[in-house]
Amino acid sequence: VPQSFGDRLARQVAKRSSQLVLGLDPDPMRLWPRATELAAARAGGHPVSSAARAARAVSAHCELAMDAAGEHCVAVKLQVACFERLGPPGWAALWEVCDRARERELLVIADAKRGDVAITAAAYAQAFLGETPTPFGTVAGLGADALTVNPLLGQDSLLALVETARQRGRGLFVLVRTSNPGAADVQALALAEGGTVSERLAAMVAELGSGCVGAAGLADVGAVVGATAPAALEILRQAMPCSVFLLPGVGAQGGRVEDLAPAFAPGPAAGLIAVSRGIVDAYERTGMDPALAAEREAARLRELAWKLA
Amino acid sequence: VPQSFGDRLARQVAKRSSQLVLGLDPDPMRLWPRATELAAARAGGHPVSSAARAARAVSAHCELAMDAAGEHCVAVKLQVACFERLGPPGWAALWEVCDRARERELLVIADAKRGDVAITAAAYAQAFLGETPTPFGTVAGLGADALTVNPLLGQDSLLALVETARQRGRGLFVLVRTSNPGAADVQALALAEGGTVSERLAAMVAELGSGCVGAAGLADVGAVVGATAPAALEILRQAMPCSVFLLPGVGAQGGRVEDLAPAFAPGPAAGLIAVSRGIVDAYERTGMDPALAAEREAARLRELAWKLA
Repeated sequence: VPQSFGDRLARQVAKRSSQLVLGLDPDPMRLWPRATELAAARAGGHPVSSAARAARAVSAHCELAMDAAGEHCVAVKLQVACFERLGPPGWAALWEVCDRARERELLVIADAKRGDVAITAAAYAQAFLGETPTPFGTVAGLGADALTVNPLLGQDSLLALVETARQRGRGLFVLVRTSNPGAADVQALALAEGGTVSERLAAMVAELGSGCVGAAGLADVGAVVGATAPAALEILRQAMPCSVFLLPGVGAQGGRVEDLAPAFAPGPAAGLIAVSRGIVDAYERTGMDPALAAEREAARLRELAWKLA
Repeated sequence: VPQSFGDRLARQVAKRSSQLVLGLDPDPMRLWPRATELAAARAGGHPVSSAARAARAVSAHCELAMDAAGEHCVAVKLQVACFERLGPPGWAALWEVCDRARERELLVIADAKRGDVAITAAAYAQAFLGETPTPFGTVAGLGADALTVNPLLGQDSLLALVETARQRGRGLFVLVRTSNPGAADVQALALAEGGTVSERLAAMVAELGSGCVGAAGLADVGAVVGATAPAALEILRQAMPCSVFLLPGVGAQGGRVEDLAPAFAPGPAAGLIAVSRGIVDAYERTGMDPALAAEREAARLRELAWKLA
């Protein structure tokens, strides 16, 4: 039996003294200039498609960002949509970036927000966390350490994902309260039974995670809770006492690290602060070299968060 | 300006006298035997990875299924998870199957159930419905005619998808009431304001779709409504009078075509019956040749549905 995700994460957080997650949401039109140069050099003059060239540049960009800011982080969060839009070469770049993250001893969170009926959820579990049996041999999936998932289809839609994750010491982050302005449209709806949709989802997360709480006191089923809704944080922490919170929305979306203390109540690894544009695009605000600006901003955020825990 | 999705669909339904959608959810361990043979023959003895061989077989399987049952259908619904689990070659197979469907004049519904914050939703729109600008030229997306999407993140998360779909005469199917047993866990929750989560989602769908109702009276924002919940069908039809309903769950999941009449109230193209295993695995129940069994079952379901409309 592999070590549980909660314990793996707690060890990683302790080792790196960090709860910062580097978000990688590469936009081909906003890559670091050095990435575009590197990709051109690696192509070596061979004719390749626009998609393949863009995918190479995206991969180089992510590698440069990890080289710059990775030492301050426990994990990378790969925004799968940004790779998917480049088609098959983009999907290959996603795999490549995942390998590069592992070489740097960073955990990989696949931010894919998948959710479907049980038989399809099992296929997504194979794609991201497990492997697929075929008549031609077993095909390995992406091998992410954790996956973000959407619970709108209910508990049975999550069980196949939990099963695969648990068998392999991987984790899930279930959407409970997202960081976007429209989050309230559905998630904040008040229920006739009392509470909100988010609170109902939180109860589901707590129940699913109760089957695997590690020595560090953390479950393998966590929650996505936007840093943009600090008022909801305390209530959701009470509802999910053992769940790791993945906290997006700091920086570009307006969330502040200083407001996130309730997330860390169960311990330093109980909250992961995911910052994408705030780190990768820091150079646009400062005029510094992209790598240097990213390194400094990551160091600053890491320290700010570590003081809270 | 391209023709609206509602009008494109209405024309296709009229042309084919069918509302049947062939669902393709290929499991590499349950492919038609002929697909595995074809894939081996096409490989031609060159050494290729397990993933590439499985992806070839999956692609061949989908092509054979379309050849067998496609003439009775208006569209194919490609279950993206089943391709994703084969990694980059699986993603290439998805693109290939999409091309094969277009050659057969079948509309393509990408069943991906994507949903994310606005900036990421825009990336998914590029991936499935649009294209992505890059410094190396524009990269075309999958080019699906419609995409299934998850509304848990609220209206702003759907707007970027609606915008891209509308510009290009494509459609969306928003999850409103899914076909799985756990659907009730979240979607059927009663709200303090009255109604259920599903009904709230239905109101959102009706509002989003009101911006583009074609000459045939159908909007470009439709809804996924499981054929397994016929009791909900009438209420949801009233709430979404112009939306096309994508109706999964007939066959393997227990839904019956005979119960779906309310879906077709606005007209013959207002409901699409998506059947996957019921058609593709029909040979397992009958002992016939897979293609013949699929053809007969598709013909039967098409006729059954056409009588309702």
